Parts: sequence; C-alpha cells; structure tokens
Amino acid sequence: MQEPKTITIYSVGLIGGSIGAALKASGFGGRIVGLSSEKGINTALSRNLIDEGHPYSDLSTVVKQTDLLILCSPILTIIDTIKILGEMELPNGLVITDIGSTKRAIVDAANKYLPPQVKFIGGHPMAGSERSGPDASDPNLFSGAVYVLTPADKNDTSAIDSLSTFLRKYLRCRTVAFDPATHDSVVAAVSHLPHILASALVLCAHEREKSIPGTLTLAASGFRDVTRIASAKYDIWHDIFATNKEAIIPLIDSYINILNELKTLLSNDALKERFEEARSIKESMQTLT
Amino acid sequence: MQEPKTITIYSVGLIGGSIGAALKASGFGGRIVGLSSEKGINTALSRNLIDEGHPYSDLSTVVKQTDLLILCSPILTIIDTIKILGEMELPNGLVITDIGSTKRAIVDAANKYLPPQVKFIGGHPMAGSERSGPDASDPNLFSGAVYVLTPADKNDTSAIDSLSTFLRKYLRCRTVAFDPATHDSVVAAVSHLPHILASALVLCAHEREKSIPGTLTLAASGFRDVTRIASAKYDIWHDIFATNKEAIIPLIDSYINILNELKTLLSNDALKERFEEARSIKESMQTLT
Repeated sequence: MQEPKTITIYSVGLIGGSIGAALKASGFGGRIVGLSSEKGINTALSRNLIDEGHPYSDLSTVVKQTDLLILCSPILTIIDTIKILGEMELPNGLVITDIGSTKRAIVDAANKYLPPQVKFIGGHPMAGSERSGPDASDPNLFSGAVYVLTPADKNDTSAIDSLSTFLRKYLRCRTVAFDPATHDSVVAAVSHLPHILASALVLCAHEREKSIPGTLTLAASGFRDVTRIASAKYDIWHDIFATNKEAIIPLIDSYINILNELKTLLSNDALKERFEEARSIKESMQTLT
Repeated sequence: MQEPKTITIYSVGLIGGSIGAALKASGFGGRIVGLSSEKGINTALSRNLIDEGHPYSDLSTVVKQTDLLILCSPILTIIDTIKILGEMELPNGLVITDIGSTKRAIVDAANKYLPPQVKFIGGHPMAGSERSGPDASDPNLFSGAVYVLTPADKNDTSAIDSLSTFLRKYLRCRTVAFDPATHDSVVAAVSHLPHILASALVLCAHEREKSIPGTLTLAASGFRDVTRIASAKYDIWHDIFATNKEAIIPLIDSYINILNELKTLLSNDALKERFEEARSIKESMQTLT
C-alpha cells in the first residue's frame, strides 16, 4: 500500500487517541477520522486527536473513504466489528489493523469474515497506561516501544512492510512480526502470566493478613512492584483471558514446576545458582529496552 | 533507657551509614562510633556519617563506652557477632539492636548468648535500596518507613518504648512491635515469597525465550515491575533464606494452591471475582503507605 491518505480510528480511547495524537505530532498530512461515542468524539476533537468524528453507526459510510482502518476496541469488540465489516461493502485495497492484546482469535476472525480485496494485519503495541480514555492520550505513548504485527497472510510482505514503515515513521515505535499463535504464546509468558501471579500474591498476602493482622502494613517497595499490575481493571483482562487461556494454562503449570524446583532448592540451601541465573537474565534484558 | 549518649554502629554500609546520616541530620547530640573496614571508615568519616571510626577488632574496647549498639551486618554475621559479644565484658544497661531482615534466629541467639544485664531488641527497618555501601547512605532512607521492633523480652516495655521513641525521633520512621516468629511469617509473605516469585518468572520467561527467540524483547513495563527484585544480589538473600525457610516453604505451597485455584477459574472464564478481590485489596493498601 502507499502511505494512507485517510485513516479511520475505530474507538478513540487511550490507544486510539494516542495514535491520533502521535500522527498529528509527527506531521501526518492526511485526514484522521474517529468513530466513537458522542462524548469521546467531543473530547478527541477538542484535544485535536482527530480531524472529524462520527458515531459508530457511520462505520459503513466512513469505511468507503478509508485507506487504513485501525480497530482500537477491546478484543471481543474487535472480533464483533470484523464480523460486521465482513457484511459491508469495503473498498478495494483497504488495510485493516487492530491493537488487541491477543492476536490468534482476531486474525482467525479476519481470515473467516473479511473479503479477499481487504488486507488484514493484526497489531499489538506493547505500550499502555493505568489510565484510560482519550483524555489520557499521549503522542509519545509508542515512542521507542515494540509494536508487534501479526499478518493474516504472511506472504503479503509488501503490505506488512508498508504498515511497518508507516507505524515507525509516525508512532516512532519499533516493529516486529510474529505469527499470531507465537505472539499469543509470548505475551502469555511476559504479560498474562505476570498478571495472574501478581493477583495471586495479593490474595496470598491477604490470607496471611487474616491470620496475622498488620501483615500488609509491612509490604514495602518490593511487594508494591510485584503487585502493581494487580490494580488493573478486570474488563480488559476478561477478553485477554477469554481468547488466550489455552496458552496461559499450560504456562501456569510450567511456572508451578519451577516454583516447586525452587522450593526444593530452598529446603537444601541451594538456591544460589538458579537465583544468579535469574539475575543474569534480568541484567541481559537491560540492554533490550 | 535514657536517650543514648554514645551509639556504636557495627558495619557502616547502606543501612548503618544511613542511620548515622539520619542521626546527624536530625540533630542527635551524642557521639556516633562506627566499626567498619578501613575503607568503610574513611568513607563514613569523609561523609560525616560517624564521629569516629574503628576496625571491627576494637569491638571489645568500644562496646564498653557504648549505650546503644546497632548491628548492621548481614544476618549470619549479626548472629556471629552476638556470640562474640556474649564472651565479652559488657557494660550494665547496654542496649543492643540490629537491622537483620529475619528476626527469629537473631533473637534466639541473643537470648542464648547475651548476659542478663544487656537488653536486646531486634529491629528491621522496612527500607532499602538497590545500592549498597556507605556511599549510598541517605539520611531520609527511613523517613516514613515502618521499622519493626522484636524484643527478646516482651515484658521489658520500658526499653522497647525508649528505643521506639529514639528511632521515631531521629530516623523519622514509624515503629511497630511484633514477636520474632510473627515478624518472620509476615515478611515471608510480603518480601521473601515475592522475591522467589519474581525470580521464578524470569526463569519461566527465559524457558519460553529458548523455544521462541524474541520472547523477552516483548517484556513491557508489567513484566519489568514484577521482576525488578530479581535483580538483587544473592548474598544478602542467602542469609534470609537460611534463617526463614521454615516460614517460606509452606507459603510457597499456599501460593501454589491459589495459583491452581485461579487456573481452574481461568479455564471456566470465572476469574472476575477473585481478580476484583485482589484489586480491591490493592486499593485498600494505598491508604496504608
């Protein structure tokens, strides 16, 4: 594809709004259309995240004038929107992407419902915030962050390259391509499992609080770091768990195996080697980010 | 005890040095003696953390002129020092405290080795830094932090109150008293278990990296938060694990039980209630710190 002239952002929340803000800040010369609630449109227009706003019900009209459609809803809503798009008249050469945190279910839906003249390339920017909504939009949200692309058709390298170039230019992110199932296995390990571990630790410490009141008052910075993500709202995680539990469940088992190994080492005063291995992996990761 | 006139800090590292710095900053009018390596003494003197410095071998002389002795070494060294102190001539009314991260083994040693004319009150300031050594000293390290006291003799409330008042006045910390075994159960849940969980997550993600290269490049802020404490040096943790594994091991089992429960809920799309419980516990903790 050539650089898109009209971009439509479907749902202008934190991520959609930040994409609009980044496009504006980076000097994107085309038109940015936002589909959102009335309140969302007003906020997005007043913050100059989009050039024009429409209600969601205008999708079938708006999409005809769109070169690049970016679906920025929660995962299950993205899948519903793909189904609805499949029943619409879509322009030749339309490129559709999304920002959902799991990719297999979304790319499967795209393969199933979208017509062949449309190119679908799944996307997952590894950036976020504890805040939400267009008011939290940040033109630098993606700056330096990894943005994963998971094309529905791996052979269409030209469309992937074009979208990748476009995102790097305007969002200043780094792009990397994975197939959808591989992406989901990876984020199960580095994002979804950590979330479950953090919540489980809060519940475990709270059990001790019930038997020893005051336990939680001794929680210092280490505990707060480990459990920070347990403060996230469940809504967005519902869709992640619903679409990736097949990858997460066996990983919980792998993790429990490691914990049992560490427990045995602990009882034998022999944790040193595995702890230093973990520390050295952490150190090698400093150079990655 | 009256407010001590001469305080001796045994080992002037991050914690010992910060105690000296805090005493100076808060206008402590007495004398601060530091026992350390030659290099440690020079640093501590040049940074005005202590008034005079001695090698560790001067302990038996220095302690005779001391009202409050603060043992700031790693846990097993503190226990060794308590044994050595038990063989020395100690002044009547001497108060000894320490800063070790576990308390049962230390207070047991104090009860076993120290003579009755000496009062031992275990201590654990819930404050630290990734840095170490007197160069990292910070007069505000304890400011607002919880400082746990675990007296060897619970009935000696006057000595406990005096030390507590002294610490709050000069370190500007909050003090709380626990018996040693209770303290160790609590920190097993809020400090030692989190450390093991963080290291296990690094090892688990690294296993996935071996099968899917690039896994760790997708680790974003959530992963970094959860695994931050896995960067700590093992040295200090060796002593913690050696003296508290009895409390940590059953807690690993409790944690695995919770993980298995969450796994079952995940497979039934029923995580919501437990996740919202964890979130609400986290929210209630905001008001604690």
